[in-house]
Amino acid sequence: MTTPAAGLEHFAGRDLISMRDFRREELLAFLDEATRYEGFSEPILAGKVMGSLFFEPSTRTHLSFNSAMQRLGGSSIGFADAKVSSTAKGESLSDTIRVVENYCDVVLIRHPREGAARLAAESTSLPVINAGDGTNQHPTQTLLDLYTIRQTRGRLDNLKIAFIGDLKYSRTVHSLIETLTHFDNELFLVSPTSLRMPASFIDELDDRGTVYTEDEDFFSIASDVDIIYTTRIQQERFPDPIEYEKVKNAYRIDRAAIERIGGNVTLMHPLPRLNEISTDLDDFPGSAYFDQARNGVTVRKAVLSLLLGHTRG
Amino acid sequence: MTTPAAGLEHFAGRDLISMRDFRREELLAFLDEATRYEGFSEPILAGKVMGSLFFEPSTRTHLSFNSAMQRLGGSSIGFADAKVSSTAKGESLSDTIRVVENYCDVVLIRHPREGAARLAAESTSLPVINAGDGTNQHPTQTLLDLYTIRQTRGRLDNLKIAFIGDLKYSRTVHSLIETLTHFDNELFLVSPTSLRMPASFIDELDDRGTVYTEDEDFFSIASDVDIIYTTRIQQERFPDPIEYEKVKNAYRIDRAAIERIGGNVTLMHPLPRLNEISTDLDDFPGSAYFDQARNGVTVRKAVLSLLLGHTRG
Amino acid sequence: MTTPAAGLEHFAGRDLISMRDFRREELLAFLDEATRYEGFSEPILAGKVMGSLFFEPSTRTHLSFNSAMQRLGGSSIGFADAKVSSTAKGESLSDTIRVVENYCDVVLIRHPREGAARLAAESTSLPVINAGDGTNQHPTQTLLDLYTIRQTRGRLDNLKIAFIGDLKYSRTVHSLIETLTHFDNELFLVSPTSLRMPASFIDELDDRGTVYTEDEDFFSIASDVDIIYTTRIQQERFPDPIEYEKVKNAYRIDRAAIERIGGNVTLMHPLPRLNEISTDLDDFPGSAYFDQARNGVTVRKAVLSLLLGHTRG
Repeated sequence: MTTPAAGLEHFAGRDLISMRDFRREELLAFLDEATRYEGFSEPILAGKVMGSLFFEPSTRTHLSFNSAMQRLGGSSIGFADAKVSSTAKGESLSDTIRVVENYCDVVLIRHPREGAARLAAESTSLPVINAGDGTNQHPTQTLLDLYTIRQTRGRLDNLKIAFIGDLKYSRTVHSLIETLTHFDNELFLVSPTSLRMPASFIDELDDRGTVYTEDEDFFSIASDVDIIYTTRIQQERFPDPIEYEKVKNAYRIDRAAIERIGGNVTLMHPLPRLNEISTDLDDFPGSAYFDQARNGVTVRKAVLSLLLGHTRG
Repeated sequence: MTTPAAGLEHFAGRDLISMRDFRREELLAFLDEATRYEGFSEPILAGKVMGSLFFEPSTRTHLSFNSAMQRLGGSSIGFADAKVSSTAKGESLSDTIRVVENYCDVVLIRHPREGAARLAAESTSLPVINAGDGTNQHPTQTLLDLYTIRQTRGRLDNLKIAFIGDLKYSRTVHSLIETLTHFDNELFLVSPTSLRMPASFIDELDDRGTVYTEDEDFFSIASDVDIIYTTRIQQERFPDPIEYEKVKNAYRIDRAAIERIGGNVTLMHPLPRLNEISTDLDDFPGSAYFDQARNGVTVRKAVLSLLLGHTRG
Repeated sequence: MTTPAAGLEHFAGRDLISMRDFRREELLAFLDEATRYEGFSEPILAGKVMGSLFFEPSTRTHLSFNSAMQRLGGSSIGFADAKVSSTAKGESLSDTIRVVENYCDVVLIRHPREGAARLAAESTSLPVINAGDGTNQHPTQTLLDLYTIRQTRGRLDNLKIAFIGDLKYSRTVHSLIETLTHFDNELFLVSPTSLRMPASFIDELDDRGTVYTEDEDFFSIASDVDIIYTTRIQQERFPDPIEYEKVKNAYRIDRAAIERIGGNVTLMHPLPRLNEISTDLDDFPGSAYFDQARNGVTVRKAVLSLLLGHTRG
């Protein structure tokens, strides 16, 4: 049996760049530790400064990390938009990081280019957190998704989990599915043909022996499904607007759809939503999408604390 | 007689959306309480986070609220411009609020649409403060105006108060005049014909039995006037630039004008000013427009504290 | 002999507008005091608020000052871009300062117009720090440069210092050279003919009896040079792109060039760099350009503390 603190000592001073860097035991130890940050707001990071470098805007992630830092007594410097940064003058990312490391204790970076966070981590001895690098990774999103799954279902194994919508481009879905291969679950992959899961991810599921089905029909998912994770389908993915309208409505979930599936399901969405989930589900007990936002702060408090050398376990 | 703390217990956890929600007794109790925040800067809000959502820029209000929060040991997250927010991706205001409520303890919202603050308040159980919703309400501006009137004249009744300039579009003037109907004063409404007070407000003055005159001539106001409240006349209100130039100069107040009126007057302006008030009045003892900026922080410290459950009374 | 604290009592409540306001003794006293802020992060400025007014963006200076303030327990309000400010509505700088002084304890201003910081200082009794006013002054940059020179060479006199690159437009170089006239050094001024030091600065060197040479050739500098200070040559200064390319490559410093000069040299650059310094010098022991960034925080902590009335000496 895993003791709560196992693996956590690895976090101090480390970077958080990709979910691929995690072993199963580390994930479980992290999630245990994160529970200790629910509603916790003591100034254990007083005097600590986060360098928050958003080369691409992202309100939700920006606010969530800043809230986490402030709840623990820390503060932050940075920019919310690349236009204000020195890269506008042609400075290399590596130079920017080597300057900013003098101003702070931990670096948070959001960047449109894949691999930018890894490059940043290699430019400084400070811990670096990837807050999204292009289509690649956004590990704290995956951690909060795992946290929410375990919080609502009590476990990360033996679950039936359906992913609905854009399975081709969604970084959130790709990262969560990859991470779930550490655990033993049954997946339902529901998407329009043009937005199917890329072959590389399907191959990974096969390699890991994960059980899954692929279908276009929302109602192909098991009636005893535990989790429905749905994502925004972006109009710009479709050359033909009529095609988009058809798809958009086919994957819109409302209370009637949930009742037809069976009621004991947890409904997740990374937000923002447009109309993928009807507002008539907002007071449905299984709706967990706003809980995900709350868990985002909890998980980020744990990440910041651990990387800065604190454990509560 | 009103005891100082009466009504204050209503503030804890409440919203501040519109001056129309206030009774006279609450206003007086609030203003008494606010005096206790003059120069006060102890960390009574340590660990508290303000979610500061400016869907429309407003430097002055933004800086003033942030100063108030920081003076009391609190901090803030948010954005200063809608372009950075998730609404740019089509998220509903209600969803934005339901996400942000997980990040903070009190929500401050500035929005171009009337009613947005009320909608925000209905979307969360956190206290919501309206920092301006279109042409509708900006209650802390009115509270700081009342505070300044009472501070300089010692009372809110039995005053002669002149409003000068754009009485048609000025949200600041409308809200202050409406709130003053709780008290017994004589009003002088001075504006160009094209910028007269709207009929709905005039009707309200009639209904409440408020004594007032309307005139185009600045010198129609009583020589023993207590307060002159003047506002910016915006060029874009006038199709004809010549008409604008005429009006602009007719309502420009300088030291000579004040001396002709009689000297014992308090001169107010919500700022920023262009040339409505001559800089030769900046060291005139009755000039209170920069005091209004200082009182803004005092009043906002009191508002934040009260909504977050603190009283000093 | 100068006792460490001499001159420091002049800082409390003063402004920091121009290096021309400093006497030699004050500079030395300041640099001594600044050493006491290396790695220092106790909340001696808790409750203090910095008004940070960037009418022109400057990430590096903005982040560095905010880091300094936060390391000492203080916080800040402000804007990073003029577009968000009330000046966009036509407000005078003087009015903006008279409003903002009610929100904070110290004002930091960056402005595209020369003299703006001085005007700001005249509009308020709060301490004002010039964070760059057009081509004029940016005193904390000069202080961190002096700090770095003394830190690496152990003294500010009897040094051979080479300035390379754009000596015509570089505010950083002008201010540092002017300030160095308080001390006894030998200067090497190396630039393309079209970017030579302006006559007014050359006259000043002559008046002060400073020894200097002017040359176009990088290798004209002494082989026992102590400091090489190089700056970015901006393409937009050259009408002819071919001319720019020629010059750019002539002043690019790499490890081979440094070895030819002799190795015991300190290499400085205000950053951001493009390719003026080859990255093969980043691990050269004499490279001090990232140290300058670190020293920037140290120096700014000392400036903020001193202006707000603290001494550690």
